[in-house]
Amino acid sequence: MGAFERRHALIFAAAPETEYGYIRAFLKKHPDALIACADGGLRHARALGLHPDFMISDCDSMPEVEGAEVVRLRPEKDDTDTQGCLREVFRRGCTEATLVCATGGRIDHMLANLSLLEEAYAMGGRLTVLDRQNQIVLHEGGCQKFKMPPEYAYFSLVPLDAVLTGVSIENAKYPLRDAVVTRAGMVTISNEAIADSFSVTIREGRSLVIFSRDWTRVL
Amino acid sequence: MGAFERRHALIFAAAPETEYGYIRAFLKKHPDALIACADGGLRHARALGLHPDFMISDCDSMPEVEGAEVVRLRPEKDDTDTQGCLREVFRRGCTEATLVCATGGRIDHMLANLSLLEEAYAMGGRLTVLDRQNQIVLHEGGCQKFKMPPEYAYFSLVPLDAVLTGVSIENAKYPLRDAVVTRAGMVTISNEAIADSFSVTIREGRSLVIFSRDWTRVL
Repeated sequence: MGAFERRHALIFAAAPETEYGYIRAFLKKHPDALIACADGGLRHARALGLHPDFMISDCDSMPEVEGAEVVRLRPEKDDTDTQGCLREVFRRGCTEATLVCATGGRIDHMLANLSLLEEAYAMGGRLTVLDRQNQIVLHEGGCQKFKMPPEYAYFSLVPLDAVLTGVSIENAKYPLRDAVVTRAGMVTISNEAIADSFSVTIREGRSLVIFSRDWTRVL
Repeated sequence: MGAFERRHALIFAAAPETEYGYIRAFLKKHPDALIACADGGLRHARALGLHPDFMISDCDSMPEVEGAEVVRLRPEKDDTDTQGCLREVFRRGCTEATLVCATGGRIDHMLANLSLLEEAYAMGGRLTVLDRQNQIVLHEGGCQKFKMPPEYAYFSLVPLDAVLTGVSIENAKYPLRDAVVTRAGMVTISNEAIADSFSVTIREGRSLVIFSRDWTRVL
């Protein structure tokens, strides 16, 4: 049994972040979250007054390290610090993680972070990517029911694969029934739940489900 | 022949944007660009002192319209304003476009904007998505040579499809030869050209090529 068994990990990546309100809200709901930092993500954790339980670092964007457990990586490696951090906390027993400070700045890093949703699933776990306007999860296939988080206005289906088949959306403003949805020309953006939950069925193909809100609605 | 034949379109989407320096730099290089606005993108064009040649609007995020030609859409439709804008300027003769103010804010919108890279290609044209840290193009398949833009530090290969086969990267710090690259666990982030150009070959599968720079390098 890993040292972090059954802990929900809050992973700080190192993308630029200007607003921490959404992380404070997460911590209120998950006061026992394991605090994990990927390299420069430590700056964000410190800004929130948090002491990391776990840190992984190649010291290329931040010379300092801090944490109850610290793993050092060589700077020149195939994967990003955030990929390494997710793998390590899962290896130590976490099966659920929320990744923050992961969407601003470099889009290659952001898309690599979104690819972790698939990687977490392949590892038998579950990841949520969170920022001030978005909450992103992976559709796990088949028929999946989602509770619409009340702080979001929209949900979107964003195909990862070029073609999704057998797509049905129920309890939504724009329902679908056994449809084909393509990545190019995607038509499944800005849907709305008509009750407090909705369901999405996908027979074939991988997709993200993104809850989002316009920024003006947050202010 | 469409009215915009041979014009390079600069398309303003409506995502939050705090910095316009990269758009000014683009306009210096493309003083004759056709200025196209998708709905609230008009705010950004105005902030730069530009008068749109073309505007498409469903009036849901901006009540005003302005432009030599204006197309009105109904607010409840399947595609986003930005998707509609790209299709319309291409229909009028543009075959090359650069999309700005398209990456901040809602990630569902951002990913829908990235899907336009594939849609532009399917329409026989070419799109670049640009922001202050990133320049994103679609790999068009086969062997493609890229000039490394001097203002960027890195290039990344971000697979769109789950698996890319026959991937070779030449003239780069981290070369590859006939490799398999997967979307989950992607290992092709933060490569560097070792000369002023590099080449990427992909036998099977669709990928983005992203030029990026750390924000500290921009300041």
